[in-house]
Amino acid sequence: MEKAVVLLSGGLDSATCLAIAAETRDVHALTFDYGSKHSREIDSAKAVAAKLGADKHTVMKIELDAIGGSSLIDENIDIEKTGNVTGEIPSSYVPARNLTFLSLGVALAEVVGAGEVFIGANSIDYSGYPDCRPEFIDAFQKAVDVGTKAGAGGTSVKIIAPLLNMSKSQIIQKGAEMGVPYELTWTCYSGGERACGKCEACVLRLRGFEGAGIADPIEYEG
Amino acid sequence: MEKAVVLLSGGLDSATCLAIAAETRDVHALTFDYGSKHSREIDSAKAVAAKLGADKHTVMKIELDAIGGSSLIDENIDIEKTGNVTGEIPSSYVPARNLTFLSLGVALAEVVGAGEVFIGANSIDYSGYPDCRPEFIDAFQKAVDVGTKAGAGGTSVKIIAPLLNMSKSQIIQKGAEMGVPYELTWTCYSGGERACGKCEACVLRLRGFEGAGIADPIEYEG
Repeated sequence: MEKAVVLLSGGLDSATCLAIAAETRDVHALTFDYGSKHSREIDSAKAVAAKLGADKHTVMKIELDAIGGSSLIDENIDIEKTGNVTGEIPSSYVPARNLTFLSLGVALAEVVGAGEVFIGANSIDYSGYPDCRPEFIDAFQKAVDVGTKAGAGGTSVKIIAPLLNMSKSQIIQKGAEMGVPYELTWTCYSGGERACGKCEACVLRLRGFEGAGIADPIEYEG
Repeated sequence: MEKAVVLLSGGLDSATCLAIAAETRDVHALTFDYGSKHSREIDSAKAVAAKLGADKHTVMKIELDAIGGSSLIDENIDIEKTGNVTGEIPSSYVPARNLTFLSLGVALAEVVGAGEVFIGANSIDYSGYPDCRPEFIDAFQKAVDVGTKAGAGGTSVKIIAPLLNMSKSQIIQKGAEMGVPYELTWTCYSGGERACGKCEACVLRLRGFEGAGIADPIEYEG
């Protein structure tokens, strides 16, 4: 089977993306430990990678908290628990996150000889993150085509975003059919013992399961 | 003055780039501690940033060595000391390095409110690194334009590569005129006490000083 790198956060989307990739590829999962408040995502990523049979899993530290600027990593910015999902760029936006994560995914792909990097970005329910939009994926691909060893040699690493045009409910339906272990995923931004159910990430997750007509297997506060 | 982020490795090019930026900008230098064998570059970066009056200096750790694949970071790949500079992609190529470093530079720029990221990439003497070519800088800019908060809002962070079309000798001449402290810079890949004079980086540096008609102020082995 062809090798592929899959960016795996431990959340619902990337777990589904991993399952899709693993159907037809030898999967090397890549998770970033970037100083996020919801670092238990990383334990989820490990559990998901093991459960879905990833061939390898690399966890890489990056001190994004040295930069700050997002409620996800900056102690001085609170996570919003208003349940607002407005389509505007929220305080949880981590500057240039997908740009950075995809770059490192491409780096790993070059080293391990993978032809593709899978990312679980999707923008249908929620276009608040500019780096989850199709235009961004296309533009990034062009930078990879001219800026990497593989690209300069003719065969560039391809960015694959299989969920890009799927709604959260469609993603969950698809994942449920494939047996994605959603009970192992972690979505909440707040970093508590249980998911808060109130942050933007929880709200989108809950709406997605509701729309899919499937019960969310994780527990929520209160 | 306008704020700018400057990627600073501690080498000759980025030191010159910093001096150019600092003439007209409030400079926030950004250095990556990425597990390189020549990590004394980082001490050089700190000394150069202080000497050239950078307003701030962030040193960020990234575990690129978790990926490997380059003689600069991988214990299993030797640094070449043949003095070969062929124009082919050398073993010192770090996969997707400028892609990653520019991404993090853009992230910092977004957080500190800088409108520009300066990078000391140049490709005249040496086109071996695909991510130092003008085509790459242009393509990356387009990814930033659509993939970041600033870009989505209309005013994107601009990538400035002032050395892109300069030869190594021209860079050194320009830097010498501006008083760049080349005695504080570190170029050698080998990680010894003194520069080896034989790796591709040393060879390019020595040729550059020779072409500029200026004595290299650092000491070499043997």
